[in-house]
Amino acid sequence: MITVVKIGGNVIDDPQALQDFLRQFEKVPGKKILVHGGGKIATSLASKLGIATQMIDGRRVTDQASLEIAVMTYAGKINKEITAMLNGMNCRAMGLCGADDLLLAKKRSPVPVDYGFVGDLSSEGVNAELLLLLLETGITPVIAPLTHDGKGQLLNTNADTVAGCIASALAAKADVQLLFCFEKKGVLSDPVDEDHPLLMLDKNSMKQLAENGTISRGMLPKLNAGFYARENGVKTVRIGCSASLNEMLSLETACTELQ
Amino acid sequence: MITVVKIGGNVIDDPQALQDFLRQFEKVPGKKILVHGGGKIATSLASKLGIATQMIDGRRVTDQASLEIAVMTYAGKINKEITAMLNGMNCRAMGLCGADDLLLAKKRSPVPVDYGFVGDLSSEGVNAELLLLLLETGITPVIAPLTHDGKGQLLNTNADTVAGCIASALAAKADVQLLFCFEKKGVLSDPVDEDHPLLMLDKNSMKQLAENGTISRGMLPKLNAGFYARENGVKTVRIGCSASLNEMLSLETACTELQ
Repeated sequence: MITVVKIGGNVIDDPQALQDFLRQFEKVPGKKILVHGGGKIATSLASKLGIATQMIDGRRVTDQASLEIAVMTYAGKINKEITAMLNGMNCRAMGLCGADDLLLAKKRSPVPVDYGFVGDLSSEGVNAELLLLLLETGITPVIAPLTHDGKGQLLNTNADTVAGCIASALAAKADVQLLFCFEKKGVLSDPVDEDHPLLMLDKNSMKQLAENGTISRGMLPKLNAGFYARENGVKTVRIGCSASLNEMLSLETACTELQ
Repeated sequence: MITVVKIGGNVIDDPQALQDFLRQFEKVPGKKILVHGGGKIATSLASKLGIATQMIDGRRVTDQASLEIAVMTYAGKINKEITAMLNGMNCRAMGLCGADDLLLAKKRSPVPVDYGFVGDLSSEGVNAELLLLLLETGITPVIAPLTHDGKGQLLNTNADTVAGCIASALAAKADVQLLFCFEKKGVLSDPVDEDHPLLMLDKNSMKQLAENGTISRGMLPKLNAGFYARENGVKTVRIGCSASLNEMLSLETACTELQ
């Protein structure tokens, strides 16, 4: 069994929460991969450097300056700090990003909307052989959400999508479980009732909840990536709280499982 | 034969020179490793962020803010841009730094002078098995000059030292050659006569040249790392111009070889 864990930005922004999470991640038995998001560090660095964030219809545009910020913070600071911390916990971690011959993406077409240096990834773009080789050697890959186009260009890719594609690619060769960890206990049908996430969710229900606005915008990439993984042979996909990673694995805590 | 190449900051700062160098590096036959320095990008980012560079006796101090800048620029921007470019040239490159279970260093003692988060590395700290495994798989490691202390702390380490220690550690298991590439043709006995570097240099001559001021301060870490490698079984150590990497290998250009 290979466990792919995605950890979100809110946890990365909180040093104590991140350390607590990594102590749990280190205890996950067997082969495992950690995919991490970005958090506010990139936005904060861009702001300090006077680089404005361009938005189109509420979506961020990755221009050259924003891409450099993403590479520095995601593949540099966040990735290497996590990797050093895991190696300090006796988890043999290796910090990588997609440009390390790992995730080959296609730059998104500038028509109709030019989102800049954004890479669209599918499971076919994942170098599963290389990941399996590292896992076989006892290495835990820690992966920053950047990809490349195979012609020398780095691209920005959603971290949930990266986790979903990696899990899907590995599922062709091994049993895989995928866990999305963030600050909530799962998908909430009532945003006020944080203690009772939906325990099960299928794709049709997701569509209904998205249409009536129950599922928030930020949750959609996670769910799309999760259902993509389910459709590609990933046995278990769960969404839950980073503070309870080990309990999510053993189902000793409430979390949302995708059907 | 394993070829370890160190590329210096001046080449990294010049996009065209870097691309030309990488096209040559890609052609180096057999197993190879690229170690890169930092260049002015870190200084420029620190300056934009208003972070002052602390110096003691002409040597830089790595405080927390400077370390973060180094991690972002060396292990982030420079490392991943080089890696993406090499993968675009059909060289299967993987960008790493010492914190990726690769280079275990000792934080330099704060007594008598506290240089901050600086790691002292020897060949014993190099995970040669992991490098050999990657090389066997056809991967070219691209290594940023950061190390870790094994307890979760990233450390800054001189890139020449990193290259010398990696070459030395590998020399216990394979034939290794080490090339330091920079903007000059080699060690100059007459700084005005740039076309005629010393073709051979032994350790005693180096000491004399250092004492009488012929060898500049910036050249000393390269020479110390180079002689360290020679003393640890590295068969060939050459210092020469990055624009002539392939000719340095075939000795079709003048460069300095350490005896």
